[in-house]
Amino acid sequence: MTTVTIWNEFVHEKENDTVADIYPEGIHGAIATALDENGFKTQTATLQEPEHGLTEDVLADTDVLTWWGHAAHNEVKDEVVERVQQHVLEGMGLVVLHSAHASKVFRKLMGTSCNLKWREAAETERLWVTNPTHPIANGIGEFIEVPDAEMYGEHFDIPEPDSLIFTSWFEGGEVFRSGCCYHRGEGRIFYFRPGHETYPVYHQEEIQQVLANACEWVSPNPDAPEIVRGNHEPIEEIDMTDDRSVH
Amino acid sequence: MTTVTIWNEFVHEKENDTVADIYPEGIHGAIATALDENGFKTQTATLQEPEHGLTEDVLADTDVLTWWGHAAHNEVKDEVVERVQQHVLEGMGLVVLHSAHASKVFRKLMGTSCNLKWREAAETERLWVTNPTHPIANGIGEFIEVPDAEMYGEHFDIPEPDSLIFTSWFEGGEVFRSGCCYHRGEGRIFYFRPGHETYPVYHQEEIQQVLANACEWVSPNPDAPEIVRGNHEPIEEIDMTDDRSVH
Amino acid sequence: MTTVTIWNEFVHEKENDTVADIYPEGIHGAIATALDENGFKTQTATLQEPEHGLTEDVLADTDVLTWWGHAAHNEVKDEVVERVQQHVLEGMGLVVLHSAHASKVFRKLMGTSCNLKWREAAETERLWVTNPTHPIANGIGEFIEVPDAEMYGEHFDIPEPDSLIFTSWFEGGEVFRSGCCYHRGEGRIFYFRPGHETYPVYHQEEIQQVLANACEWVSPNPDAPEIVRGNHEPIEEIDMTDDRSVH
Amino acid sequence: MTTVTIWNEFVHEKENDTVADIYPEGIHGAIATALDENGFKTQTATLQEPEHGLTEDVLADTDVLTWWGHAAHNEVKDEVVERVQQHVLEGMGLVVLHSAHASKVFRKLMGTSCNLKWREAAETERLWVTNPTHPIANGIGEFIEVPDAEMYGEHFDIPEPDSLIFTSWFEGGEVFRSGCCYHRGEGRIFYFRPGHETYPVYHQEEIQQVLANACEWVSPNPDAPEIVRGNHEPIEEIDMTDDRSVH
Repeated sequence: MTTVTIWNEFVHEKENDTVADIYPEGIHGAIATALDENGFKTQTATLQEPEHGLTEDVLADTDVLTWWGHAAHNEVKDEVVERVQQHVLEGMGLVVLHSAHASKVFRKLMGTSCNLKWREAAETERLWVTNPTHPIANGIGEFIEVPDAEMYGEHFDIPEPDSLIFTSWFEGGEVFRSGCCYHRGEGRIFYFRPGHETYPVYHQEEIQQVLANACEWVSPNPDAPEIVRGNHEPIEEIDMTDDRSVH
Repeated sequence: MTTVTIWNEFVHEKENDTVADIYPEGIHGAIATALDENGFKTQTATLQEPEHGLTEDVLADTDVLTWWGHAAHNEVKDEVVERVQQHVLEGMGLVVLHSAHASKVFRKLMGTSCNLKWREAAETERLWVTNPTHPIANGIGEFIEVPDAEMYGEHFDIPEPDSLIFTSWFEGGEVFRSGCCYHRGEGRIFYFRPGHETYPVYHQEEIQQVLANACEWVSPNPDAPEIVRGNHEPIEEIDMTDDRSVH
Repeated sequence: MTTVTIWNEFVHEKENDTVADIYPEGIHGAIATALDENGFKTQTATLQEPEHGLTEDVLADTDVLTWWGHAAHNEVKDEVVERVQQHVLEGMGLVVLHSAHASKVFRKLMGTSCNLKWREAAETERLWVTNPTHPIANGIGEFIEVPDAEMYGEHFDIPEPDSLIFTSWFEGGEVFRSGCCYHRGEGRIFYFRPGHETYPVYHQEEIQQVLANACEWVSPNPDAPEIVRGNHEPIEEIDMTDDRSVH
Repeated sequence: MTTVTIWNEFVHEKENDTVADIYPEGIHGAIATALDENGFKTQTATLQEPEHGLTEDVLADTDVLTWWGHAAHNEVKDEVVERVQQHVLEGMGLVVLHSAHASKVFRKLMGTSCNLKWREAAETERLWVTNPTHPIANGIGEFIEVPDAEMYGEHFDIPEPDSLIFTSWFEGGEVFRSGCCYHRGEGRIFYFRPGHETYPVYHQEEIQQVLANACEWVSPNPDAPEIVRGNHEPIEEIDMTDDRSVH
């Protein structure tokens, strides 16, 4: 069974009544419930815990980490960020959600600013499937409509995704690359745009379906080839030639 | 000086007064004028000419071919389509415009159906720049707004572009990959969405700028490495090893 | 259970004793045995059968088609090639083997010449894993060594692969993109280089493992979103705006 | 005229006679001479200078930065690394050379370990052109042969390149992605493998040609569209709809 650790900075829920009403168990609680129902083993971790709840032991026991942050990116310790990066490079899956585009973890793995435009106007968003062959789109229709969304617009300063699964249309006139797949080291990363804290996005069924698909897709591959790096066998020990090459 | 051959099926202009009013010299005439002004040497060719105006001699003298078709895709002879494909694979640039997504030439080079959705409702389109580092976007702002456009929507059945330069937003709720770069053989291809015949799209300055940028980008590279294929040198004639490899 | 139809032109085995000795049941027979043992339901088809064994009924019952051809590419009927292309675009998986790089089916789906260089000198090949996160490399070590191989060398005239899984090293001095993933329409395609008829390549265990992985990876996705194309809903029937957009 | 700043850690040349004999003016001196002759304006900077010679003023006056480092990656100050990253994201070109695969600058921009295998055995390397349409390969033949090279082998822990220009073959049995293009922010990056300090690689004419091509390709685009990020125009000020959408 795939173990998913759901990380949330858990700040808005404690400071804003609207958010608390939508997510009484926290955003992490809502995501955990949804993933439980989809057959994952889940655990949660938040900013306020020692080492933000992401000790070496916790990460060693994590197949997939999901990350939601917004107001407190700078409070995340660099040491924990480096630990998360290291685990991703060694094969742990990572699902980066909404405003976590600007998290230290995502920016460190992307190498870019991950900046974008935004507008908070409760406008309609449509996430169109632009890669229907990808399993992250399984069970979805042609598009997902989010009735009230914060807008994120291009240009989004990210490396060109290895696969682009969703492209968003916003009522106010913008487009956005909303579902982006990456491979980094032996790990897989999926960035998924929806999830503003003042709208009940993570209660929407299609969004939960994509979260489950994404956790499945980024989960580690136990049969992957072992990678060998560093100083290699001396050339003379390699079995390479017979008389064909020295005519 | 780069020679551009502007191909147009030239059907709507002769059958529809609205189109004739917008493009009294034909769509090819309008594009030729725009490219002339941008420093290209231009010539035109149309469906009705012998071999559709695309003889071996014409193509041998063409650096870049632009292609507009809609009503008469099936009247284009397979022999000419194969000739165009061959020239692209040998290095001729190709710019595919609007409804030519369904042309035989484009479908043959892509290998897919190139189908899409559409709607003709004179709605607003915004072509957002999603790759601002690419020279095809030079001189453009954040987006190009086309006030009256035919909608093209995803899913667009194309191979994933090598670079995606523009993503369109449509007033009616759809998105579309509107500016797509490909390499095929030694040639470069750019698909550019705008250009419905009943709207004066090719008279719009930013659209003309993109056409000029695209013709520049797809133009052949005279310094490209020569490709050698077929049966290779026998292995014993290759200078490869000294005693290091046979210890 | 995934149904794999294994297509072979079945010419060399009947004309060349060396090949017949290596593949007494034909190349298709050897591949079928290997895939049977890996849990697939298999059936075979050859050039000599009516419609080359690839009737509409057979393809409708096929999840994955594997294709081996070399001496008789031109004898494959265009009508069958178009039928295969159509099924791939609708979701059937395709695994293209060795000299089938030059098959009509592969060239039609790629849009390029698919030419390369080659040399038949029984030299050593090493297929290095260049994408260890991809399931097609599952269960493989750092590289697969084929002791006696026909060389294929760059430049290989293909569209840039969506993922490059293997890169070959040849004793005689060349490299080659040996394991190439593509998405075309709703289908997935894998090109896999090894397989020269005069060497027992398909009896090698790691090669059989890759064949099984590839058939698994290209197999159709029953939960993929339904694609809608063609003329779209009229704009006024789309539920898109409320008063927010018309201030 | 394009200004190239050539950075070198400049350690081996002062500690190892072999290196000093090959590069009496330092590796940076040899590269500067080659780029001067190819029409660039050059300046050099080294680790030992204040701020490693890469002050804000120097970078503000730099179109393209080339980076060679090996023995002293850890002595490069994080502050300077962040400054370089920022300039790349704002459009400065970057050419990363040989052992600088493990430099702080490259790893920060890639987000991965950038680890690889290696062997120092003066073996033959062939850099095969795998993307002959790219201007970085201009003027090169089918491959570049380096008679004495340090081997670098896969798996190379990098993000999949936006374009792969060269793939190396090594006499001892390995392959390597040797010429890798990336876009990060508004900047372009090229990683180029050859350049071990104990062999006269940067005196080789074809290598100098690639360096010049690369500096040309990564140089900033003065006509690129301006990027706007941050909080966007309120939705009601956007000119988007007329009566067509509210039938």
